[in-house]
Amino acid sequence: MTNAAAIAARYIAVWNEPDAERRRDLIAQSWSEDAGYVDPLMRGDGHDGIDGLIAAVHERFPGHQFVVRGEPDGHNDRVRFSWSLGAEGGPPVAHGTDFAMLAPDGRLQSVTGFLDQVPAGL
Amino acid sequence: MTNAAAIAARYIAVWNEPDAERRRDLIAQSWSEDAGYVDPLMRGDGHDGIDGLIAAVHERFPGHQFVVRGEPDGHNDRVRFSWSLGAEGGPPVAHGTDFAMLAPDGRLQSVTGFLDQVPAGL
Repeated sequence: MTNAAAIAARYIAVWNEPDAERRRDLIAQSWSEDAGYVDPLMRGDGHDGIDGLIAAVHERFPGHQFVVRGEPDGHNDRVRFSWSLGAEGGPPVAHGTDFAMLAPDGRLQSVTGFLDQVPAGL
Repeated sequence: MTNAAAIAARYIAVWNEPDAERRRDLIAQSWSEDAGYVDPLMRGDGHDGIDGLIAAVHERFPGHQFVVRGEPDGHNDRVRFSWSLGAEGGPPVAHGTDFAMLAPDGRLQSVTGFLDQVPAGL
């Protein structure tokens, strides 16, 4: 049984890390070397690819933070959780739900993002 | 881009097929030979394994039907959709959300079921 809440919290912390070097360390700790991420807007493979798309989100939404929404849920090596993105103290500008498959060592192997509500113009 | 609604409808039709022979045909059409299904309660691998768990659900919930709930959503080779299970004309006894990854030929490769609401005693 997965610890869905801890996995979601660690995952969101990576997305929220603005410091490039610290973010690279967090990615290495929590994603497999051959991991992949895909959502309707972007895709990233490996640590470099994943770092690149997180950096792009920081550039596109400066000062914004992801927060976990609701209760993360997991079983076997699978996890799902929902999130919101918003400027600190402001209303959310986007909501999504991510689905993750874990590698045997517990790190993220494959994450699929779905958008539940997106900013106008995206 | 996936046709999420069609994929969900075809998937649910397989779960609802009570005739063993017809169900085997539908499974072969819509699932890869090496496909797998897993949810918190059960797991099935390959056409035989998947057929076995669908048959077990028919035995456990005779006369019940799955229906798609809300709008199926997909991008790339990934689909998500929600469903309800209920006796015909009765209230739903369970709700769930499934996440699917497709094989290159468009058949289901991997499906993860999550339970949003389950029958008492399960």
